[in-house]
Amino acid sequence: MIKVGIVGASGYSGSELLRFLANHSGGLQVALCTSETYAGQCIDTVLPNLRGFLSSAFEPLDLDSLKERVDAVVLAVPHKVAMSFVPQILAQGLRIVDFSADYRLGDAETYEAWYHAEHTSAELMPQAIYGLPERYRAKIRDAQLVANPGCYPTSAILAAMPLVAQGVVELDSIIVDSKSGISGAGPKPRENTHYPNRESNVAAYNIGVHRHTPEIEQELSAVASETPVRVTFTPHLVPMTRGILSTVYMRLTEEMSTQETLDIYSGFYEHEPFVRVLPSNTYPETKAVLGSNYCDVGLEVDTRTRRVVAMAAIDNLGKGAAGAVVQNLNLMFGFNETDGLKVPGMMP
Amino acid sequence: MIKVGIVGASGYSGSELLRFLANHSGGLQVALCTSETYAGQCIDTVLPNLRGFLSSAFEPLDLDSLKERVDAVVLAVPHKVAMSFVPQILAQGLRIVDFSADYRLGDAETYEAWYHAEHTSAELMPQAIYGLPERYRAKIRDAQLVANPGCYPTSAILAAMPLVAQGVVELDSIIVDSKSGISGAGPKPRENTHYPNRESNVAAYNIGVHRHTPEIEQELSAVASETPVRVTFTPHLVPMTRGILSTVYMRLTEEMSTQETLDIYSGFYEHEPFVRVLPSNTYPETKAVLGSNYCDVGLEVDTRTRRVVAMAAIDNLGKGAAGAVVQNLNLMFGFNETDGLKVPGMMP
Amino acid sequence: MIKVGIVGASGYSGSELLRFLANHSGGLQVALCTSETYAGQCIDTVLPNLRGFLSSAFEPLDLDSLKERVDAVVLAVPHKVAMSFVPQILAQGLRIVDFSADYRLGDAETYEAWYHAEHTSAELMPQAIYGLPERYRAKIRDAQLVANPGCYPTSAILAAMPLVAQGVVELDSIIVDSKSGISGAGPKPRENTHYPNRESNVAAYNIGVHRHTPEIEQELSAVASETPVRVTFTPHLVPMTRGILSTVYMRLTEEMSTQETLDIYSGFYEHEPFVRVLPSNTYPETKAVLGSNYCDVGLEVDTRTRRVVAMAAIDNLGKGAAGAVVQNLNLMFGFNETDGLKVPGMMP
Amino acid sequence: MIKVGIVGASGYSGSELLRFLANHSGGLQVALCTSETYAGQCIDTVLPNLRGFLSSAFEPLDLDSLKERVDAVVLAVPHKVAMSFVPQILAQGLRIVDFSADYRLGDAETYEAWYHAEHTSAELMPQAIYGLPERYRAKIRDAQLVANPGCYPTSAILAAMPLVAQGVVELDSIIVDSKSGISGAGPKPRENTHYPNRESNVAAYNIGVHRHTPEIEQELSAVASETPVRVTFTPHLVPMTRGILSTVYMRLTEEMSTQETLDIYSGFYEHEPFVRVLPSNTYPETKAVLGSNYCDVGLEVDTRTRRVVAMAAIDNLGKGAAGAVVQNLNLMFGFNETDGLKVPGMMP
Repeated sequence: MIKVGIVGASGYSGSELLRFLANHSGGLQVALCTSETYAGQCIDTVLPNLRGFLSSAFEPLDLDSLKERVDAVVLAVPHKVAMSFVPQILAQGLRIVDFSADYRLGDAETYEAWYHAEHTSAELMPQAIYGLPERYRAKIRDAQLVANPGCYPTSAILAAMPLVAQGVVELDSIIVDSKSGISGAGPKPRENTHYPNRESNVAAYNIGVHRHTPEIEQELSAVASETPVRVTFTPHLVPMTRGILSTVYMRLTEEMSTQETLDIYSGFYEHEPFVRVLPSNTYPETKAVLGSNYCDVGLEVDTRTRRVVAMAAIDNLGKGAAGAVVQNLNLMFGFNETDGLKVPGMMP
Repeated sequence: MIKVGIVGASGYSGSELLRFLANHSGGLQVALCTSETYAGQCIDTVLPNLRGFLSSAFEPLDLDSLKERVDAVVLAVPHKVAMSFVPQILAQGLRIVDFSADYRLGDAETYEAWYHAEHTSAELMPQAIYGLPERYRAKIRDAQLVANPGCYPTSAILAAMPLVAQGVVELDSIIVDSKSGISGAGPKPRENTHYPNRESNVAAYNIGVHRHTPEIEQELSAVASETPVRVTFTPHLVPMTRGILSTVYMRLTEEMSTQETLDIYSGFYEHEPFVRVLPSNTYPETKAVLGSNYCDVGLEVDTRTRRVVAMAAIDNLGKGAAGAVVQNLNLMFGFNETDGLKVPGMMP
Repeated sequence: MIKVGIVGASGYSGSELLRFLANHSGGLQVALCTSETYAGQCIDTVLPNLRGFLSSAFEPLDLDSLKERVDAVVLAVPHKVAMSFVPQILAQGLRIVDFSADYRLGDAETYEAWYHAEHTSAELMPQAIYGLPERYRAKIRDAQLVANPGCYPTSAILAAMPLVAQGVVELDSIIVDSKSGISGAGPKPRENTHYPNRESNVAAYNIGVHRHTPEIEQELSAVASETPVRVTFTPHLVPMTRGILSTVYMRLTEEMSTQETLDIYSGFYEHEPFVRVLPSNTYPETKAVLGSNYCDVGLEVDTRTRRVVAMAAIDNLGKGAAGAVVQNLNLMFGFNETDGLKVPGMMP
Repeated sequence: MIKVGIVGASGYSGSELLRFLANHSGGLQVALCTSETYAGQCIDTVLPNLRGFLSSAFEPLDLDSLKERVDAVVLAVPHKVAMSFVPQILAQGLRIVDFSADYRLGDAETYEAWYHAEHTSAELMPQAIYGLPERYRAKIRDAQLVANPGCYPTSAILAAMPLVAQGVVELDSIIVDSKSGISGAGPKPRENTHYPNRESNVAAYNIGVHRHTPEIEQELSAVASETPVRVTFTPHLVPMTRGILSTVYMRLTEEMSTQETLDIYSGFYEHEPFVRVLPSNTYPETKAVLGSNYCDVGLEVDTRTRRVVAMAAIDNLGKGAAGAVVQNLNLMFGFNETDGLKVPGMMP
């Protein structure tokens, strides 16, 4: 049995992880939940859906004693905060899955350009493994530090990867138009998460400067054998709590039908337990993956313009966050990769 | 292992039952799914959240061969349809849980008065057990035919039962004001389930004539040792897919504080795995039980008017339908009562 | 032409007032908009729906110069703040409509009991007119200080008033169960207005202690010729931005049919331009009054329990706030009472 | 005074037109409302938001007597139905605004290719004027037959037109990614408008085959002096009733900053009463135009990829349908172009 400590467990990623782990067959046990805001309060008072599941209290973080309490640490704290903890935790020999962006990018320069912050442990960046099992499964098994992917990148990469890998799309003209639920902005009330501001409302934000852009480009460039991939990424908020639909536009370098293109996807994801390639004329919808670790992928070739319109739907808190962490922990500690995750989306 | 056949498995109650059973440890196996509308189509094409879970097809119903295929039958068909199947299924020695209202009431007369339809197997009504484990646990274990409670009655009865049992409220002035998500109306598109008609909209319906009224009155009267209980029941539709909050108004016959009243509830539900009594100053919210089999109960005593305002929140498709069926099946077949059901609500 | 100054114009009540006044035929002109938060910023930058309508800027409040700028002042500030401005504004001879609760109650004692704050100008309370034209039309015309009613009270009073006035309901057993959109909580982001906390969620709040309770009781008691009326009032938040549906339960002291009861309502509101009594079998829905100054009232008599279930639907920002202010200003300054207000609700 | 007859007035476009005309200063009078479904029923029973506004009844359509009743006809019927009425109405000398797609395209061949239906009055297509005042204002004034634009095309064309006109974008790589509210699908309940299917759900539909595609291409090609423009158009449904946000991706043929690009838009729309160009760093949001005839346009240049991300927000039933009809009627009959339309969007 592996004892897991969750640092920052009261946020949306952390609490969703607790929800997923309630379904785990038992090999992963929550041994510690820390929260700066709620230290001392009962977990199931703060998170009322977990009433009856976790009667212990949130604790303050004591970095020095982590090793006595847990075998693995999940960091569910913002970027910059994560890198202030990681070196010390690794030094204790503990394995880490980090929800934050601090170790997702391969070099400090890119990090600093997009995050406008100095990276204080750049020397650890090369050893961090990008936690996308569909690409790095083997490396994740042995990783000491796993950087859990961002929610938008997970959807964009899974939608684009098969064709980029196949080498049949123009690499400088990829467009990612994403529609996200509001929970991606976290539990802290802000003007742009205020109910009356988001209900009946759709708008884009952070065009050209969203920090998930370099993450998408890095991973797709790697898939393209380091031919640089440039994407135009436009995130939008739509009136729902959970879910991301990313619509990815790619121009084909050769003529292909929808079915031929789908076959490439089906082959590429043949053995993936959580990527479901939809048949032709069927498009992903976010509700089909609600609350789950699944990613539904579908596409249509617009033959008039030789463009593939590929779509991926995930739950931003599931496959886009906490589900992926469970999948990574399962790989790291030798559990069945799907343990705790074979839960269907909630429909209707 | 018990093989379960679900008749009418493509509706909301049936498909939610499939979702719950995906979490069951294995003792209950779905051996047959029938659907009049979708017979011949793959289950996971019709229900996209179940892709990868059930690759078999919906079948037409063949009443005669049920016994060869299954050990238990769940009827997820409308009232009147259910009673046209029940006698024949019972005659084969199969045990039944019936989602419909056909066997919930104790006598054909009341049924016919509220449902405006003749009851064609009134002789079976007395042997049917009302499937509310919080009241009939022992009888359910041995039942041949379990009438699964209605969603509104589940919430209303669980909110009112402790005080009615205690004999401290006026029995002729109980008011049940319920707020329900839209999924209670089923999967068939209708004018009052059309998205633009329900979004940003709240309205009452069926005041004074809703068919769940006699069900609530029957069960609360039984709790009151057959002193007749009369309720004013007003259901409302609110803009959400799942969830019911029932606000129940009861006048106390003696002065009691909120805490004293809560203590009665805590005692009453002390051993119930799925009823969670909330502490004072905390009121049930539907989202805390979303997708789960939990019922959260809370209350406040308005001392100025000597009224208890008791509230119960359930997911109408969970504790109000499919979750309750799993709980009943677990009881009937000797499984752990909570098997497949220890899943937290989905928050946020 | 009457020049109106709006103090606190950037909040929901103030900005909705600006939206309504854009429809006014011209007799009421917005001459001043103050905002503590946004002083110096263009109105139509802060309120993007008003782009092109108001190109001036919010100003800081200068109490001393109000008289030089305006003929009437609308106070759209919180309670306690309002009473710190009112005496000085009245002293300048300006007429006031006050959105806040500071002058709605008839005596300081009740105010202090429910608002837990000292009333600093109790001497002005008796002269303030409760701004419900359906009851105080004549007095409003001559009023110097109009206390605009609360949103919940408007709906509750309009739903109950005809029967209370008729003297045919028990006065100690009235229950008001209200369902409100989120905008009632104002524009400031808070935990209970955070989109993910309110979407798919229904819950009650402030049971027994909501400050609108004494306002409802005061006005219904006045209607009942000062026989004290006591109400149990339970407000709920439902997932929509605007709209209140109040379901009011009253026990009849004599037997009456639904149609007889409706006739009382139709007679009572016969000459009211903004109260629409719905025919039998038709219940109010909030969407039919969305964005408007209308109040739709309907009812059903539950003959089994001799209870009237009366319902009123308003837009909490329309008839429940800014629409009522326009109606009051029209009365105070001799304009057609419906000027700027004959706008249908927005459906679908 | 111009008497207007609305054929098909009970649908969403027709009823929204009635709502807009309630604000008109009086020159346009609704003299006839026909409805196949509701003939004989009171308008304000069918459309509860209009209670008290229109007490007359829907009538059956009598084509022959139109001339005796009205001066202008608005056709709010589906495509194919419209063209079965138009020749006969024109023959009576009546002027028409047609909500449908039947006369939007310039030639029968394109119509038949996309609509899979024969055009039965192709000879009238050349004389129909595409009712986009921002492009055809002068021609609309004199038109006998105005084809009111589709909702998606209105948003896409207004977002792209200034740069296409300026000749600074690649014409073969324009992508239109649209997010629409559900009311675009009309009032008839269907599976994809069923509340539980659309709440918490985002999905694309009709990729590559949506019938608004040739309309967008025709108009943008005309703007480009008949250089053929090809667009990839992907409509999505998002969980709201009204509103369209179209995100349009265009590659610049030369380097331009966001501000330089915005200046082109500001110049282009300088005299337009209903197109509001937003300042830099401000993006359109659908709620700011809710219920109005405004179109908010904003943009960002992604200099890394030399792409303009231009966005337009409209209410699909306002500027995308009924508002545009009023604007066109105003032009055709010599009223002030903005009469009945200077109504701000409803926020929050």
